[in-house]
Amino acid sequence: MSQSTTNPQRQIHLGAIIQGASGNMSAWRHPDAIADASINVNFVRELAREAENAKFDLLFVADGLHINAKSIPHFLNRFEPLTLLSALAFATTRIGLVGTLSTSYSDPFTVARQFSSLDHLSDGRAGWNVVTSPLEGSAKNFSRDKHPEHALRYRIASEFLDVTKGLWDSWEDDAFVRDKASGVFFDPDKLHVLNHAGEFFSVAGPLNIGRSRQGRPILFQAGASDDGKAVAASHADAIYTRQETIGLAQAFYGDVQKRLAAHGRAAGSLKIFQGISVIVADSAVQAEDQYRETARLVTIENALDYLGRYFDHHDFSQYPLDAPFPDIGELGSNQFRSTTDAIKRNAAERRLTLREVALEAATPRPSFLGTPEQVADGLQAWVEARATDGFIVRGGTPLAFTEFARKVVPILQERGAYRRDYAGTTLREHLGLDYPVNRYALTA
Amino acid sequence: MSQSTTNPQRQIHLGAIIQGASGNMSAWRHPDAIADASINVNFVRELAREAENAKFDLLFVADGLHINAKSIPHFLNRFEPLTLLSALAFATTRIGLVGTLSTSYSDPFTVARQFSSLDHLSDGRAGWNVVTSPLEGSAKNFSRDKHPEHALRYRIASEFLDVTKGLWDSWEDDAFVRDKASGVFFDPDKLHVLNHAGEFFSVAGPLNIGRSRQGRPILFQAGASDDGKAVAASHADAIYTRQETIGLAQAFYGDVQKRLAAHGRAAGSLKIFQGISVIVADSAVQAEDQYRETARLVTIENALDYLGRYFDHHDFSQYPLDAPFPDIGELGSNQFRSTTDAIKRNAAERRLTLREVALEAATPRPSFLGTPEQVADGLQAWVEARATDGFIVRGGTPLAFTEFARKVVPILQERGAYRRDYAGTTLREHLGLDYPVNRYALTA
Ligand SMILES: Cc1cc2nc3c(=O)[nH]c(=O)nc-3n(C[C@H](O)[C@H](O)[C@H](O)COP(=O)(O)O)c2cc1C
Ligand SMILES: Cc1cc2nc3c(=O)[nH]c(=O)nc-3n(C[C@H](O)[C@H](O)[C@H](O)COP(=O)(O)O)c2cc1C
Repeated sequence: MSQSTTNPQRQIHLGAIIQGASGNMSAWRHPDAIADASINVNFVRELAREAENAKFDLLFVADGLHINAKSIPHFLNRFEPLTLLSALAFATTRIGLVGTLSTSYSDPFTVARQFSSLDHLSDGRAGWNVVTSPLEGSAKNFSRDKHPEHALRYRIASEFLDVTKGLWDSWEDDAFVRDKASGVFFDPDKLHVLNHAGEFFSVAGPLNIGRSRQGRPILFQAGASDDGKAVAASHADAIYTRQETIGLAQAFYGDVQKRLAAHGRAAGSLKIFQGISVIVADSAVQAEDQYRETARLVTIENALDYLGRYFDHHDFSQYPLDAPFPDIGELGSNQFRSTTDAIKRNAAERRLTLREVALEAATPRPSFLGTPEQVADGLQAWVEARATDGFIVRGGTPLAFTEFARKVVPILQERGAYRRDYAGTTLREHLGLDYPVNRYALTA
Repeated sequence: MSQSTTNPQRQIHLGAIIQGASGNMSAWRHPDAIADASINVNFVRELAREAENAKFDLLFVADGLHINAKSIPHFLNRFEPLTLLSALAFATTRIGLVGTLSTSYSDPFTVARQFSSLDHLSDGRAGWNVVTSPLEGSAKNFSRDKHPEHALRYRIASEFLDVTKGLWDSWEDDAFVRDKASGVFFDPDKLHVLNHAGEFFSVAGPLNIGRSRQGRPILFQAGASDDGKAVAASHADAIYTRQETIGLAQAFYGDVQKRLAAHGRAAGSLKIFQGISVIVADSAVQAEDQYRETARLVTIENALDYLGRYFDHHDFSQYPLDAPFPDIGELGSNQFRSTTDAIKRNAAERRLTLREVALEAATPRPSFLGTPEQVADGLQAWVEARATDGFIVRGGTPLAFTEFARKVVPILQERGAYRRDYAGTTLREHLGLDYPVNRYALTA
């Protein structure tokens, strides 16, 4: 607060990924790594505290609903997001708690309830990263014949969000009177039955939990396709995205602002977070060495498995490694479409071999790598250029996140680009977003 | 441990209910009550600590999936069980964490994951109270045409448990090798794909979380009908039940033991918990006064609403209050069948009026009420008579639970009938149950 008024600089927002040993799919082998980090209680607790000490806006937990023997190690055995974040609610006090949950394989009543409950338990720190599930195999875990195709998934997602938002308005903020003398527990005029009957869902309500501390939990959206951005523009409070260059990120940022305006939403009512990986060292050369040391842990077999996951578990080991990236058609286009398109485009434009594509995919060079000052400069440049509002940070080595929190954040604070302490108590306040007035209170 | 070897007395097991201001549906009006207890973070945290200080086996959270304006106040606005228990996982260290979740309105993959995750987060303290959802109205919150009827619900439940148990065996205990040098993260021979294809569910697996700390979470079952007991005998580790008299409880206990044997299960492999309410005071008269003071908070209108909920929200205000309990046929028999049968039988046998039935239902006299010694005597008598293995305790007034934990438990400890400290770390150990060997490890 005080910084932004005394200093014209744009304030940076920061999130921290919780997801096992960080760096790459084989980082668990790193000498510094806790090999079972994805299921290690002490690891997540310490990481949460580290991020909270550095006044991060939020913790972020990704998710997936299908694995097989070729999946990334830290996806095989990991905490479920809602239970993990709920546990952290009582081990932290201020940091936001954002978890991924799929609208393709869950029920809006339960999802609305669980995130509202997390919001109550954490005193206003819950966030939901709304995804539609890219993995085809998910269907087989949820008694479904087939994975819904891309456009259908987003239609479901959109109605799903209508329902959950409706359920979150079941009770007005001041519905619970609890007057001991008269025996009036709630004001019946402030209880609202949704009676939603749509294409995919019929949900009566009311929700059996009062309006959540933040009005409703913060909504993140993480799809980068056109359909994904449309859902974000109509529903989300924040977007989690990944662009390779500052130019692409600026274009994305501008596109989203335009869509926001088209939905009649104010500029700044949707925050954009770039997913980045960081390595911080005493010199740029040392940072580069740390990157290489971590990258070397990934064998070419690992990398082919990693690549295959984006393409419906396609077996890339059948192709020559040093020939041009093979033509695999539309494989996997119902999964991570924006990612697979980018991989193919990049391979074609730069004439990469399969080996190069696989290793680039599995061991991407951190976007921000260098001395603490260099990394701080980079982050500020992106935010000042309106390429993003903030970053969701993942370490490029097992120790990189701690280095970032302890060395880069103080520089940003020194420069007035980052909070020295939390100004508010809720995630909504950290993000500078308005409180959503209950729809029924509005019309009263 | 030491007590049971030096003392022939049967050891008592204890659980504590978390569910808002305790006593009755109107206890929130009591001068000692925290009126918003069902959604109050400090209240649940304190209650959990109180129970853990008294070395309780477990905390127990009930649940429901449908409310309307006539529902019990603390059902209108309450924490969702899994998020609540996960939060408590990091605020407690030893006490078991048991939550209710319905097999009629959830997906086995998600349920298996969330309870396994809670088991990991709590280091082996998770329990699931498996219910089939009594409330018809639940269907309307979950996009279903109608609530499945009683027998169908139990068929679904049984297959649901087959699936979750299968998923919990996806990974053998020692599947994750995590050998940094060789790069072997897991042993593929110890990963098992379930490929369940049944009447209600098709679930491939594997589960994306390793075998849970207790092998699998502890399974409670809470249905009292024949179908309910059958599911318990084949699947459950514990039963949560409620019998009015020591004789009925003995009969229930014997019945369950017989069913266990018929399923080839060892005696003692399923623990029975009686749900009880307690009031503890310096004298029996004072305890009785406390009961009356709390009961008086419930108006006859409140009581009729309470009764109506068991009978499909039937409006009992249409009948004369002081005439015999009306004939309402089979209303609600697809909901709380065992409860509604008992209410009708009791009304007929004792020739009760509607007013009497409603007030008895809404303000039941605590089964254990008196001085700390009297309450301790009562509990011991039930356990010694093999009417139960333990109790799930609810306060009969807002302060009664604390009184129980601080005054009754020490007496039981003094008498060698209750642990002075936890002997093990997991809920399974607290309950004295064997570790379930992974099905695939057995056949290896
Ligand atoms: C930065 C980013 C993070 C994502 N995180 C997840 C995730 O944690 N879990 C998930 O199921 N999908 C995740 N997704 C996938 C999207 O939800 C979406 O299903 C996929 O990208 C295909 O949709 P799109 O074509 O709109 O991008 C993520 C996507 C992006 C761009
Ligand atoms: C002691 C006891 C506790 C129960 N707790 C719950 C609960 O928390 N949530 C729920 O939906 N049903 C609960 N039930 C209801 C049962 O799960 C079941 O649906 C109902 O009793 C009808 O089945 P039955 O005829 O087998 O008893 C409980 C039942 C008993 C006997």
